[in-house]
Amino acid sequence: MQLYSFFNSSTSYRVRIALALKGLPAAYHGVNIRTGEHRAADYAGLNAARVVPTLMDGDFALGQSMAILDYLDQRHPEPRLIPLEPGLRARVLELANVIACDMHPVNNLRILKYLQGPLALSAAQKDAWYAHWAAEGFEAVERLLARHGGEGPWCFGDAPTLADVCLVPQVANALRAGCDLAPYQRVRAVHAHAQQHPAFIAARPQAQPDYQP
Amino acid sequence: MQLYSFFNSSTSYRVRIALALKGLPAAYHGVNIRTGEHRAADYAGLNAARVVPTLMDGDFALGQSMAILDYLDQRHPEPRLIPLEPGLRARVLELANVIACDMHPVNNLRILKYLQGPLALSAAQKDAWYAHWAAEGFEAVERLLARHGGEGPWCFGDAPTLADVCLVPQVANALRAGCDLAPYQRVRAVHAHAQQHPAFIAARPQAQPDYQP
Repeated sequence: MQLYSFFNSSTSYRVRIALALKGLPAAYHGVNIRTGEHRAADYAGLNAARVVPTLMDGDFALGQSMAILDYLDQRHPEPRLIPLEPGLRARVLELANVIACDMHPVNNLRILKYLQGPLALSAAQKDAWYAHWAAEGFEAVERLLARHGGEGPWCFGDAPTLADVCLVPQVANALRAGCDLAPYQRVRAVHAHAQQHPAFIAARPQAQPDYQP
Repeated sequence: MQLYSFFNSSTSYRVRIALALKGLPAAYHGVNIRTGEHRAADYAGLNAARVVPTLMDGDFALGQSMAILDYLDQRHPEPRLIPLEPGLRARVLELANVIACDMHPVNNLRILKYLQGPLALSAAQKDAWYAHWAAEGFEAVERLLARHGGEGPWCFGDAPTLADVCLVPQVANALRAGCDLAPYQRVRAVHAHAQQHPAFIAARPQAQPDYQP
């Protein structure tokens, strides 16, 4: 397999974690979304939405991290990231989609660029925007973990799931943006636990070939 | 089952379509997100993220439309909305998540309220924001349909899938916002086809008990 990824993209980071957890090798292709490489013709031919990541499995090119993660879990089910038991499966997908649908999209690079470009907002306004939506999201995640998450060390028990695969990169983004995560004790505990796991370590931005300090 | 929904919420609309396609009755509870009913204590007790929709199956309360749609497909697989064949499944989830992750979150009510509230943007700036992200999204969807969608009449062949369940409400939102959909021929064809289908008709905003003109 081949992965088209940007080191700081949290959706790429999700897929890198899943590949590492499953022990699947994938050739790494850096796509610099800061300089617009995702809009170049060759990459747009692979990814209709012109975003990272893209997974190539033979000549099958698939975009959208949540679709890629489901595909990997279907094709390579061990260890399974999306549980089969309907109740737990629903909880894992609920938390993962709070992150994928409510948190990530409103604070990703293209949105922040639009705020400071066409809308000409100040850096302070952009930072307030980021902090507002991060807080809304982490409050929801923290409540979900308190209601349904159990005793840890992962979001839902003693093995990582899609919920952790989505949560850890979102925490990394928030830390990079300087958000205060003190109120979110369970979120921080899961993140801290993941920092000790080889697959999560291997998937970190600073471990990627295209990393720039 | 019981569904907590707002008539004009496109994520609620997705779940209403799925329930109707599967022939599943659900008691309807309107939650007025314009007046903040989603933040009241009783509803927040059901939905940790304090958003619509919520599905109640007995005493199992589940939020996040994409998790709800997977849950319904697991529990009530006929007709199946998320295909089992891995290649088609991946394509359906890719298109559905372009809508759920890239399109819907940046143009939903809470974002538009923030643009005009805390950021004090003009109506024209808000409209330009909406049109920009709708165009980005529909261009991606149109390209996905052109590359992988086949001959119709649905996104992926002769039966509706999760892709259609997500696309039709997003088109309804865009039409309400006055977006020009002329460039998106395949998107418009799927939407037009769905307007003739009883389940999609039953799920429309104007057919809900809490509808307001």
